[in-house]
Amino acid sequence: MKASSGIEMMVRLERGTREPLRVQLERQLRDGVRSGTLRRGSALPSSRALAGELGIARGVVTEAYAQLAAEGYLVASQGAPTRVGGGSTGADAVPLPAGEPRPPRFDFRPGEPDPALFPRAAWAGAIRQALREAPDARFGYGSPCGVPELRNALATYLGRVRGVVADPETIIVTAGVTQGLTLAGRALIARGVRRLAVEDPGSVFMRGPLAALGLEIVPVPVDDGGLDVEALDAGGAEAVLVTPAHQYPTGVVLAPERRAALRAWGGWVLEDDYDAEFRYDRAPVGALQGLDRERVIYLSSISKTLAPALRMGWLVPPPALAADLRREKHRADRGSALLEQLGLATLLEHGELDRHLRRSRLEYRRRRDTLVAALARHLPHARPHGAAAGLHLLVELPGADEAELLRAAQDAGIGLEGLSQHTIAPGPPAVILGYGCIAEPAIEPGIRRLAELAGA
Amino acid sequence: MKASSGIEMMVRLERGTREPLRVQLERQLRDGVRSGTLRRGSALPSSRALAGELGIARGVVTEAYAQLAAEGYLVASQGAPTRVGGGSTGADAVPLPAGEPRPPRFDFRPGEPDPALFPRAAWAGAIRQALREAPDARFGYGSPCGVPELRNALATYLGRVRGVVADPETIIVTAGVTQGLTLAGRALIARGVRRLAVEDPGSVFMRGPLAALGLEIVPVPVDDGGLDVEALDAGGAEAVLVTPAHQYPTGVVLAPERRAALRAWGGWVLEDDYDAEFRYDRAPVGALQGLDRERVIYLSSISKTLAPALRMGWLVPPPALAADLRREKHRADRGSALLEQLGLATLLEHGELDRHLRRSRLEYRRRRDTLVAALARHLPHARPHGAAAGLHLLVELPGADEAELLRAAQDAGIGLEGLSQHTIAPGPPAVILGYGCIAEPAIEPGIRRLAELAGA
Repeated sequence: MKASSGIEMMVRLERGTREPLRVQLERQLRDGVRSGTLRRGSALPSSRALAGELGIARGVVTEAYAQLAAEGYLVASQGAPTRVGGGSTGADAVPLPAGEPRPPRFDFRPGEPDPALFPRAAWAGAIRQALREAPDARFGYGSPCGVPELRNALATYLGRVRGVVADPETIIVTAGVTQGLTLAGRALIARGVRRLAVEDPGSVFMRGPLAALGLEIVPVPVDDGGLDVEALDAGGAEAVLVTPAHQYPTGVVLAPERRAALRAWGGWVLEDDYDAEFRYDRAPVGALQGLDRERVIYLSSISKTLAPALRMGWLVPPPALAADLRREKHRADRGSALLEQLGLATLLEHGELDRHLRRSRLEYRRRRDTLVAALARHLPHARPHGAAAGLHLLVELPGADEAELLRAAQDAGIGLEGLSQHTIAPGPPAVILGYGCIAEPAIEPGIRRLAELAGA
Repeated sequence: MKASSGIEMMVRLERGTREPLRVQLERQLRDGVRSGTLRRGSALPSSRALAGELGIARGVVTEAYAQLAAEGYLVASQGAPTRVGGGSTGADAVPLPAGEPRPPRFDFRPGEPDPALFPRAAWAGAIRQALREAPDARFGYGSPCGVPELRNALATYLGRVRGVVADPETIIVTAGVTQGLTLAGRALIARGVRRLAVEDPGSVFMRGPLAALGLEIVPVPVDDGGLDVEALDAGGAEAVLVTPAHQYPTGVVLAPERRAALRAWGGWVLEDDYDAEFRYDRAPVGALQGLDRERVIYLSSISKTLAPALRMGWLVPPPALAADLRREKHRADRGSALLEQLGLATLLEHGELDRHLRRSRLEYRRRRDTLVAALARHLPHARPHGAAAGLHLLVELPGADEAELLRAAQDAGIGLEGLSQHTIAPGPPAVILGYGCIAEPAIEPGIRRLAELAGA
């Protein structure tokens, strides 16, 4: 019995398949090199020997060797055996990506709705309908701004619920508020904007991507009336990022006279309307955009109402910036995912989103009441702010060491944020407690534990 | 808390003023319709519901509705909700956004697969499964780079089919190659890259977004061996955008010695592997990335294999740029849509994509053969290039006036592209004919018509 190179151990050729023998051989040798089964530098059998071992024509082997040499997986040299080349790696040894981080034991992290409330059945039905009914042409490159069905449904919804005046022609469906802000930031920079005013405190996650574009960030104080517009005016910025309906993280509402002053200010206004759908004991506050369509870039999303993972939001531009923003969206990704768009349009048209929000409001209000009561019981000296709306509270803790408390909370499995993460000028010691994700029964024990850590 | 129609958001009734509640309500609803806040055709809440929300007698609402219906601002119909009527003006009067443009009569436009081949049933099943099985935690903010299921499936698929060596940890799921290029462009600019070399001819749609980032574009000639690497070296660029497996639009394959030279060149390489899954009469050519993981940024998508409208692709970064690109993706949109990711992962794991590609290849090959035959018959002097792979041909038309022919073709309802749209230095008169979308029976008459226009 003749000696064997051992290669036939790894090569398995199937006859009578659509894939030619030569291609099968190439593929399996390529895999062998990549996986490291064929070690770098090791010699391969001669084409005659391998052909003999595999029982195929020699020409098939020489062609395969030549192709793999062309690709760099093999090195052929005159009068010497063909060897494995530099293409060798260890691809198969790579670890799995880390899974999603596990939520903390007491999950007071702000900024996310309860995923357990996501209307899976309604969403599945809407997607199924979209896949059944969408014409073929929909599956090609459409408008970068989104499908007409969704832009029309959004114009109606935003007008009814938020007082937004939106021309469906100019609405841009985005991958969420973060993308909307980066598109707006680039469009404004192209218009010569260099300095962006932000609320202080204000969400670091929203100003971060804008600062990364090269905009100079100008902090403007926030008081009980919201953004200090006089300070804004003095700051010399050409644009401002605001959360008028429910300031993040303080929860205050921009006062009527401040709204008028902001309108008179005359700069570009980025309105982040991130959680306006959730209010409990106060009259709704319309979007600024309804009062000033010429200067306001309105942004919101379904990240608080449905789920962040769907990555969908929208942007309503002022007429003067509509073409610029359309161009930026086209450059960024040529448009957003089709099926989510058609699905959301269906939910809006059928009133499913309204129904979902009614159910959600009842649940979140219960949690809010439980949280407020637990704070009063276990942290009597704490000062909660912004309880009237949204999915979080800002809780001042006079005399506490915020940094120390955050460390202790993390060790104790309590998820929350510190006010200092969102302030530019130093603020009072305070924590931000979200009640979007935490189950109601966990609220009381969670706050009790937090109170122990705070030494209350 | 009771349901809210949102209308009370815009209505402000003041008691104890001289203006009766009914008149206040009428006036404010009228203003809402005039301003477009209430869009034409949108439904109003029932008189009972609105009366409840506003805390007034139902009769006040019915009277106001009746008055506004009489004025034409509202349309009341028996047993149906009262709707905003034609008396309205403003935002509600805007036309619908332009629908997707209608495809031309003879659709030879390159760059898109046949939407009729999209596996709707398989995709619907995969999405349904994802919605049924995904744990709640998946619906929150996940990794900006994508879900582990898809990154693992991609690493296996790209290794098997393209010879790409990808660590699932570093793969970034994108909204398509365009987004991948903008992320890569920003990361390279942050590393000091200023000049980007591109193939000439090369896709204007790919270099466009990179030029928009401020990169100086350095054209490098393409010949029968692909990119002229000597010219690249002389051009002084720090990075290059290439299509090695199937150059766009010429269809040439980067020659083995050029691959070696490009590897030796040492700059950053953006590898756009846009349609490698489609080849007919030649051996597959592995991705450049499999040979040089340190310098190549590998990009591809499902836009040619499944559908552009799903907006999904991926990027395999060199280890040195993995963290930078992850940061850029987080800043751009905090991640891609969840359900498309889980759906594609399922298709890959179950071999559905392979099955779909086998069916598609047979169909596209038939169309390719019909197109080549039609050209030989009706445009005997034309010189087709790149017939061995892909979804398009580059057809040189010696002596023709390309610009004139493109105008005539458009008037005649023939969709195609001209080579001059993609060249920087002037090239020969030529057209790019795609066969991804056109039905086979339309190919022969389409080419006959084109030949008439070309005066052949």
